[in-house]
Amino acid sequence: MNARFLLAAALLSAPALGQTDNPAAPSPGEIVATAPANAWVDIAPDDLLVMDLAPGAWEQPGRVVIQLMAPPFSQPWVANIRTLAKAHWWDSLAIVRAQDNYVVQWGDPDAEDAGKARPLPATMAATSEDEYARTGAGFLERNGGAGGAALRDILVPRNDVSQFQTFHGGFPVMAHATPDSVSAWPVHCYGTVGVGRGMSPDAGSGAELYTVIGHAPRHLDRNIAVVGRVIEGVEHLSTLPRGTEALGFYKTPQERTPITSIRLGSEVAGLPGYQYLSTESQTFARYADARANRRDPFFIVPAGGADLCNIPVPTRRAPGRD
Amino acid sequence: MNARFLLAAALLSAPALGQTDNPAAPSPGEIVATAPANAWVDIAPDDLLVMDLAPGAWEQPGRVVIQLMAPPFSQPWVANIRTLAKAHWWDSLAIVRAQDNYVVQWGDPDAEDAGKARPLPATMAATSEDEYARTGAGFLERNGGAGGAALRDILVPRNDVSQFQTFHGGFPVMAHATPDSVSAWPVHCYGTVGVGRGMSPDAGSGAELYTVIGHAPRHLDRNIAVVGRVIEGVEHLSTLPRGTEALGFYKTPQERTPITSIRLGSEVAGLPGYQYLSTESQTFARYADARANRRDPFFIVPAGGADLCNIPVPTRRAPGRD
Repeated sequence: MNARFLLAAALLSAPALGQTDNPAAPSPGEIVATAPANAWVDIAPDDLLVMDLAPGAWEQPGRVVIQLMAPPFSQPWVANIRTLAKAHWWDSLAIVRAQDNYVVQWGDPDAEDAGKARPLPATMAATSEDEYARTGAGFLERNGGAGGAALRDILVPRNDVSQFQTFHGGFPVMAHATPDSVSAWPVHCYGTVGVGRGMSPDAGSGAELYTVIGHAPRHLDRNIAVVGRVIEGVEHLSTLPRGTEALGFYKTPQERTPITSIRLGSEVAGLPGYQYLSTESQTFARYADARANRRDPFFIVPAGGADLCNIPVPTRRAPGRD
Repeated sequence: MNARFLLAAALLSAPALGQTDNPAAPSPGEIVATAPANAWVDIAPDDLLVMDLAPGAWEQPGRVVIQLMAPPFSQPWVANIRTLAKAHWWDSLAIVRAQDNYVVQWGDPDAEDAGKARPLPATMAATSEDEYARTGAGFLERNGGAGGAALRDILVPRNDVSQFQTFHGGFPVMAHATPDSVSAWPVHCYGTVGVGRGMSPDAGSGAELYTVIGHAPRHLDRNIAVVGRVIEGVEHLSTLPRGTEALGFYKTPQERTPITSIRLGSEVAGLPGYQYLSTESQTFARYADARANRRDPFFIVPAGGADLCNIPVPTRRAPGRD
């Protein structure tokens, strides 16, 4: 917890962690490359979703690896995604939409056609927009007031802001402070995976998913469930030809990229281990500070701050275990 | 960073322009679609750069149309770009780099090889990092205090921020206010075109250009010259296969997409007219407010603000003149 507060403080007004006078300051990548082993957190195989795509423009199969959202966020949808993956529900379905600077989306192309739609498993959890639409009663408050109070003490008075960016369990989140509480919600960045839905009160089941392939569409925050992020192979989605129908949907079935399979990591033979850089670690705090204030030789003017989507949480294949 | 965030609130959450009580508030797209004709500004043909690419993954030629940066920003590089286009300098050169969630870059693949590099025209202007590295003495101050003063009156006192986002001549810019002056600089958003360069003090000539194809890399602001933005055909760049060498450079010449030609708009027969929505218009203010506070039916929670890269300046082909 303390490390997170330090990080957020660094992000917000950046005492430079001793680096300002160092003309050869390391780049963010160098900081990550030299992180101690204990700064890396193993991602449990059941927190990984592995999507294998049929051969595409590169004429080789594409694999996309997704880290599922950490509790307490979006858990009804995450539960459904695990149910669907275990049922092999997505197999032979397709990527149905690619809209430039926005999202790539996949699921059942016949979902809107009751006669042809693939039935959902019977054990799907109910979902509700209340889970993401509300802004109060967020997890920091629910998990006890101490964290919220500390956040307010450290961050809020400094600039009199009531809304700020931080990280939780490897994911970027926004937090909102009031005199009585601190709440938080996950946000949309490049590579974020979210749950497609129709008009309210439909909140989506998790069967229709999308990945952000452009500038962070932050207006979707709190309006759609964020369920994970791509940690490997996003280029297999971001390079797909854009659909020419409204919202980037493909015009013909032939344009869609077929999904070979989607599985939980625990069901994929030979899958490497994956890790993320602990967002509570000192290394992450240094990395975030360096992203916000580039001092490596190429740069002339440090920005003095960074949007949290410009501080992607580093991930890697666990060394020595491939 | 928090200043930036507050600025969004200052600029955009302002009085809701009469829409708050309207349950059927128009979407940003609907506001743009019903803009009066006089809210649209013609882009001069010599402010357009037209890049034609050889057939790529879609097996049809791709055309990318770029609007060059409005004065007073980056004009030495823009002058060089016009010189290079008039000399047909880029013809038969190539796209050399595609890095996911970052940039696609083009120019002379042999630029670093003195024996093979294509010579630059003799009339190229000298460039200097001073043009973009400095943060003071920006255009609003130089062009007279009225604009700056108005910006301060409208924006700065509201939240006591000294750095804020705004627009100028169809481009997003950041501005910085002191008691005595207001300065400004152009920023990197999705589709922004910038000037590749080496280590300082090299500021690049304009012969090597890139386009942002991911989340806005705002750390490049004031560190690289911003010379324009793609207004049509960015998908021909954003879908290119990513290069597998460091920084997304292509490993082999065969992976590069050849450039058929790059021309100023005035030299392209049959080019449509292009327009942008005046960033000084009331329609743009309504559009920006709607982007920051989505009230169209899909949305549940308006964001209360927007990053300026989430308020892309609308452009279109001039109606009735294709």
